[in-house]
Amino acid sequence: MTFARRRWLGATALGSLLAACKRGAPVADEGPRLLGATVRAYGERSTFETAKRSLDEDRFLEASQTRTPLGESVGVLTPSSLHYERHHSGVPQIDPAQHRLLIHGMVDRPTIFTLEDLRRLPSLSRIHFLECSGNSGVEWGAKPAPTAQMSHGLASCSEWTGVPLALLLAEAGVQQGAKWLMAEGADACKMARSLPIAKAMDDILVAWGQNGEALRPEQGYPLRLFVPGWEGNVSVKWLRRILVAEEPVMARDETAKYTDLMADGTARMFTFAMEAKSLITYPSGGQQVKPGFCEITGLAWSGAGTIRRVEVSTDGGKSWMDAALQQPVLSKAFTRFRAPWKWDGAACELQSRCTDESGYVQPAKESLVAVRGERSVYHYNGIKAWKIGADGSVSHV
Amino acid sequence: MTFARRRWLGATALGSLLAACKRGAPVADEGPRLLGATVRAYGERSTFETAKRSLDEDRFLEASQTRTPLGESVGVLTPSSLHYERHHSGVPQIDPAQHRLLIHGMVDRPTIFTLEDLRRLPSLSRIHFLECSGNSGVEWGAKPAPTAQMSHGLASCSEWTGVPLALLLAEAGVQQGAKWLMAEGADACKMARSLPIAKAMDDILVAWGQNGEALRPEQGYPLRLFVPGWEGNVSVKWLRRILVAEEPVMARDETAKYTDLMADGTARMFTFAMEAKSLITYPSGGQQVKPGFCEITGLAWSGAGTIRRVEVSTDGGKSWMDAALQQPVLSKAFTRFRAPWKWDGAACELQSRCTDESGYVQPAKESLVAVRGERSVYHYNGIKAWKIGADGSVSHV
Repeated sequence: MTFARRRWLGATALGSLLAACKRGAPVADEGPRLLGATVRAYGERSTFETAKRSLDEDRFLEASQTRTPLGESVGVLTPSSLHYERHHSGVPQIDPAQHRLLIHGMVDRPTIFTLEDLRRLPSLSRIHFLECSGNSGVEWGAKPAPTAQMSHGLASCSEWTGVPLALLLAEAGVQQGAKWLMAEGADACKMARSLPIAKAMDDILVAWGQNGEALRPEQGYPLRLFVPGWEGNVSVKWLRRILVAEEPVMARDETAKYTDLMADGTARMFTFAMEAKSLITYPSGGQQVKPGFCEITGLAWSGAGTIRRVEVSTDGGKSWMDAALQQPVLSKAFTRFRAPWKWDGAACELQSRCTDESGYVQPAKESLVAVRGERSVYHYNGIKAWKIGADGSVSHV
Repeated sequence: MTFARRRWLGATALGSLLAACKRGAPVADEGPRLLGATVRAYGERSTFETAKRSLDEDRFLEASQTRTPLGESVGVLTPSSLHYERHHSGVPQIDPAQHRLLIHGMVDRPTIFTLEDLRRLPSLSRIHFLECSGNSGVEWGAKPAPTAQMSHGLASCSEWTGVPLALLLAEAGVQQGAKWLMAEGADACKMARSLPIAKAMDDILVAWGQNGEALRPEQGYPLRLFVPGWEGNVSVKWLRRILVAEEPVMARDETAKYTDLMADGTARMFTFAMEAKSLITYPSGGQQVKPGFCEITGLAWSGAGTIRRVEVSTDGGKSWMDAALQQPVLSKAFTRFRAPWKWDGAACELQSRCTDESGYVQPAKESLVAVRGERSVYHYNGIKAWKIGADGSVSHV
């Protein structure tokens, strides 16, 4: 594809921005004349860069979460250093040479794998988002969070590398009648979740790689389950054990937590898939906009597969325009969308709305509440709005 | 795609590896019972991980290079901390708020852009490899380097984000008769290269983003040219100036360096495109193999577009088998290939050979030498072989 064919070259109005650029004279400052810094064995970011994960100071930092600064994100990948994290008893330090994975229960051949065993097996890598079921849960309430990071930052996207769980299960020999498995972590709380075996046969990985190197400690080093498109807590970290069973084990983490309380007092259980969601990351809460040309950009993703369409509104949902989707659009991965815009300086409201390959359209909050009631914590995926003031400030609606 | 359809599930022989795994008893060690580490605002890798870029201790470290440890790579992305670097006068420290880009010369409207100007324009992100023209140059000689890192580590792959140079040129108004541009860096040596404008109209980016955050300092922070598929030195870092001209400026870096000396004493100039190359990363030099199942894996890439095919030989090139290409296969990006293999314990020689979308086949060294002679330093892309000894050690051929 050549740039000349891209629609924005013909269609957008850059004039008002570019008119503001300086014209004419060459750069007076010729820059440094002295040698710069030396080469380094393991690089670090510039000291001018300050993007950070959020720390919730009111929680124990050993049973807490951090959020990706999505408002500062570019592209679709999340740097591993800024990937969101959530854990219930801190990040264990595990020597990979000592770590083992046991597969047992309803199998013909219970097996213990070392990391070295697993790394010799057929592996694959895939770019996928990971999202906490509680991401954007604050939006259920009356006072949404002020920034993209605080509202939607429990979602990130990486390249994950590992061995298909299906391969390990085939080797262990799953017995007739087995329909579920339980995955258990090696952290102090032994975080555990039940999963249907059918999902393992589809696309679950036992992963050791993230973004070209080993998993980061807070992402389960040296080994985690990775369950594409499903709520993050089932991608059990520091994975030590998989039990094959007839039914879910009803672990503490799937009964006391991670269920969706409905208006009538019953709870939805095992609501694994993360439904289609989108978020404008620029302009977003806490940022500042200037009149003139400004590209609206954001991220969309769906646990059901690929994003097919993203629409953007600059008038609070009265009218919508299609955003361009950055290629390649990958299944169960962040998809970057972009829409050209010229801000006239008047107060307005931005929204985005995505449609996934199943045809599912991201709902308005009212539609969600009509079905789910107002007692939910998890699985909020309503349309997110940002308000732009006449002073160019961006805030939540 | 479900795993069940993947060919290796039916075709490979894992038995000998898996027979060696432990059977039966559950894991005795239950792991930590105490709280682990707290959340962190900017994460770091595990202290057990030691992959490093190489440092050439015999060079000035302010005018040197580091190589990516490709033998330890997983997937197709290179972590920014391990991306190779090459610079001629060290890494300048540049305040992004003070940095400017000037476009001048044969243009109707010479223009100076701030970072803030550029970031409001329509941008895009693409996953592309970057490779030094001197990568694997050691292979021209009689004594190849001992590891994948030392032979081929001047190549890496990232997601790059920026604004198309074509857009900036269109705004500046390129004048009739202009066919080249010169890009100049803000480092102390003012590294500069000439490029045909036609390439800018195709796919050159003025980039500020890498792998989801700002460029790393050694990759040109805060702004670099990114020229997909072409030798790394033309992707000028710390970009401060673009001069539009009728002809190449014949800068020092394209006359004293970066030309290819032929057998007859003449030199090829402006040999920009990196031709198709592949490399087995596991097993590769310095590693150790055990008898039984082992997945052969590596990377292939081409400046001409996508990789269409990778073949692997385990008998020194007498016979070849097709490797599986990891999807999606992206243009001018690392492509991960994998081939199942069972090592019988006898000494042997591994090779890989790739074909790109143009039909070009990676040549044997003899074919390259026949055309280019033996005085070359740059643009070596011959087939790479690794020898496996009966003791399982892997070394260069």
